[in-house]
Amino acid sequence: MITRLDHIAVAVPDLQRAIARFSEDLGLALTGREDVPTESTSTAFLPIAGTRIELVHPMGGEGPIAKFLEKRGGGLHHLCFSTDDIEGDVAKLKAKGWQFLSESPKPGAHGCRVIFAHPRSCEGVLVELSQPPAAHE
Amino acid sequence: MITRLDHIAVAVPDLQRAIARFSEDLGLALTGREDVPTESTSTAFLPIAGTRIELVHPMGGEGPIAKFLEKRGGGLHHLCFSTDDIEGDVAKLKAKGWQFLSESPKPGAHGCRVIFAHPRSCEGVLVELSQPPAAHE
Repeated sequence: MITRLDHIAVAVPDLQRAIARFSEDLGLALTGREDVPTESTSTAFLPIAGTRIELVHPMGGEGPIAKFLEKRGGGLHHLCFSTDDIEGDVAKLKAKGWQFLSESPKPGAHGCRVIFAHPRSCEGVLVELSQPPAAHE
Repeated sequence: MITRLDHIAVAVPDLQRAIARFSEDLGLALTGREDVPTESTSTAFLPIAGTRIELVHPMGGEGPIAKFLEKRGGGLHHLCFSTDDIEGDVAKLKAKGWQFLSESPKPGAHGCRVIFAHPRSCEGVLVELSQPPAAHE
């Protein structure tokens, strides 16, 4: 089952400028950065109130974030929910007609296993499910 | 200053179906609904981990949400941050070059005063600032 909202991802064309907007302008704390080669993205994390904003930028101008930026420019990209049983939740959602962008969960940031649902399955919202390592190791 | 992430707004073409997706499918609790005539929207709230997802649907097929749906279909619409000093924050952000969609804050849902910044001011993200009534009355 879903336990919390892990993050809200924002696709940004300029990571340094975006960090300045959210930290200097809006006053959020920047707590970390991580490159995720499996997703071709560079990320920056700004926690707020039980969740965090995750700025995502394409590494080397490639991958799904680059395509999003080409089409729309920067903006809200996806919601990521934490789950304590990713296989169970995927099976349950598939039974309700949800479609996923991969057959099964794969490695994501922070050692999590993650999977994305197709936006058409959730009112146009790209939804990521993520299970942290402690819960499945 | 910004104190928390009040909500993540999702524009939806079918409010009942969207409520089913987020409550029955994803397991979030639906805690309320409110019509906001000043914004021509019907809303539904689903709290999660210190913030909430707010489903927004155009009342009578009019207003800014209707335009968003025409252009993009449903999807992530805006982020709303709570502030304890909306005038101060707007002044500070204007000094940093941010542009706003109205001259000054106006009445929003739950008795708050709210203002929207132009997406170009925050990497393509439509940002709402909201000050709850207790903090300014």
